Amino acid sequence: MSLVNHRFTLAARPVGLPKPSDFAYGEEPVREPADGEILVKNRYISLDPAMRGWMNEGKSYVPPINLGEVFRALAIGEVVASKDAKLAPGEHVSGVFGIQEYATVAAKDATKIPPIAPLPVFLSTLGMPGMTAYFGLLDIGRPQAGETVVVSGAAGAVGAVVGQIAKIKGCRAVGIAGGAEKCAYLRTLGFDAAIDYKSTDVAAALREHCPNGIDVYFDNVGGDILDAALARLARHARVVICGAISQYNATGRMTGPSNYLSLLVNRASMTGMVVFDYAARYPQAITEMAGWMAAGKLTSKEDIVRGLETFPATLNKLFTGENHGKLILEV
Amino acid sequence: MSLVNHRFTLAARPVGLPKPSDFAYGEEPVREPADGEILVKNRYISLDPAMRGWMNEGKSYVPPINLGEVFRALAIGEVVASKDAKLAPGEHVSGVFGIQEYATVAAKDATKIPPIAPLPVFLSTLGMPGMTAYFGLLDIGRPQAGETVVVSGAAGAVGAVVGQIAKIKGCRAVGIAGGAEKCAYLRTLGFDAAIDYKSTDVAAALREHCPNGIDVYFDNVGGDILDAALARLARHARVVICGAISQYNATGRMTGPSNYLSLLVNRASMTGMVVFDYAARYPQAITEMAGWMAAGKLTSKEDIVRGLETFPATLNKLFTGENHGKLILEV
Repeated sequence: MSLVNHRFTLAARPVGLPKPSDFAYGEEPVREPADGEILVKNRYISLDPAMRGWMNEGKSYVPPINLGEVFRALAIGEVVASKDAKLAPGEHVSGVFGIQEYATVAAKDATKIPPIAPLPVFLSTLGMPGMTAYFGLLDIGRPQAGETVVVSGAAGAVGAVVGQIAKIKGCRAVGIAGGAEKCAYLRTLGFDAAIDYKSTDVAAALREHCPNGIDVYFDNVGGDILDAALARLARHARVVICGAISQYNATGRMTGPSNYLSLLVNRASMTGMVVFDYAARYPQAITEMAGWMAAGKLTSKEDIVRGLETFPATLNKLFTGENHGKLILEV
Repeated sequence: MSLVNHRFTLAARPVGLPKPSDFAYGEEPVREPADGEILVKNRYISLDPAMRGWMNEGKSYVPPINLGEVFRALAIGEVVASKDAKLAPGEHVSGVFGIQEYATVAAKDATKIPPIAPLPVFLSTLGMPGMTAYFGLLDIGRPQAGETVVVSGAAGAVGAVVGQIAKIKGCRAVGIAGGAEKCAYLRTLGFDAAIDYKSTDVAAALREHCPNGIDVYFDNVGGDILDAALARLARHARVVICGAISQYNATGRMTGPSNYLSLLVNRASMTGMVVFDYAARYPQAITEMAGWMAAGKLTSKEDIVRGLETFPATLNKLFTGENHGKLILEV
């Protein structure tokens, strides 16, 4: 075996939007697996907003990527060589395999993918974004039938699932997304209303589409949209803080929500969630969501871009809002 | 009976810090009580940060004071005439009696004061500030023994009680207040540490005094101090939003907490509270707190200023941080 691995490493810590020189593309020989290890050939790699945070120094919920280190990423691949009895060549696994063609990892760090859905769905609705939507909405948001659920970044991998689960739970679902095309997509998913923040006054649209206020606001974006939602909270509302993509490339001080005192007036709460905390319950959520998908109640959409070498440009689609559905790199 | 009532009405909606011309001092004949009403001679009037919000137009948790209306205030007075069988002249009652000498009100809107503590204490530790501290800390903050509780505005009527209850519950109590004198006062109350925000880098002091992070942060002030506390949260911290006195006189856009994503990283929550929601449980809280006072575990401090006519200047002591303990106007 004399395979060559191509991979991206972090070359520099970006200021603002990442640029090509912040990444280095290179090659190296593939390392053969030792006892207890497997060699995985990556098939699909997940590109996520959280990656921007990993490029910065400093404390977050996971450590930063070191300079010179292979860029961290969740991926799905095929086992091509195994020195572990539990995984055989030909099986599909997911794990933190990085932005590269091949990964040599401990078998215990790989999760077998059951053949119940196409592989990319396990990076999307049955993967981290789906888990984030499921636990963020149901555990933190606790929506009750008849309540109004608003989600920002609604056409994204997390947001689209949040709105669909809200509908499954008997709620009114209102999505905020950028552009007419994304808003049309939300309506096909069953959202009751879609607000195009690029062409509409979000505050006015929330007044129109949430006549009884917002009971659950699931925030992926931060910034002005978070402020507009705070201004429209219903009594005892729950705000789920899942992300703040509008702020991730900010070079100055982050903008905090000016309207946070709406929490006081409305006896509302704002709670942060990190999906990893729910790992023990992923199997249960995957089973339930796969059932919803089979019943036609839950649609999964992936935006699959081919070519490992496109990674730096493809990643930035997340921050310019160009992706439609879960952004995945096909190797 | 030909009594004359002196009272303050709201003359103008202030921009920034209220000025004397925003209030009008005048007199009118006292209206005799009709059936079911009582006439109260005010003795002590509570001055509270929330009053600043009532002077603005627009939705809050209570309606604004109308222009020309007697300035709303909680007070304690003596019944001097009664047309209701449940209240007799000579009894002491509390209610929303306003900034005036006499109030003619429905007997059902007055609450009898039991003779278990000096009257001003019923506007302080056994009144709204004490109730706010008790329910905000215990119901929203849910401190566990051994945890670290930080409170801002710690020398104020609410904050001082928050810190003392935190100690009663076996927590580490850290107070943030302005000036050496207030900080010395906090130490006499049993706070483990007191941070003078006027002379200290609050963020650095929180790192020093909260080595394991902040489990419960009770915020009365907002602004930079809220941001410093957010940056120091422990995993699963609870932030209680009780007020934001640093922002009440802001004339521009409010400053939101830039560090709110600490809620995400730390899986923390930020929840607003309004004391009125707990009205049904006030008697239970008063009983428990009166017991702590009798046992010497809880100290109440009032800053009593004599003279109804000093109201506009005395109110502003709240916003310039000059008061020491619960600010009360003695009529």
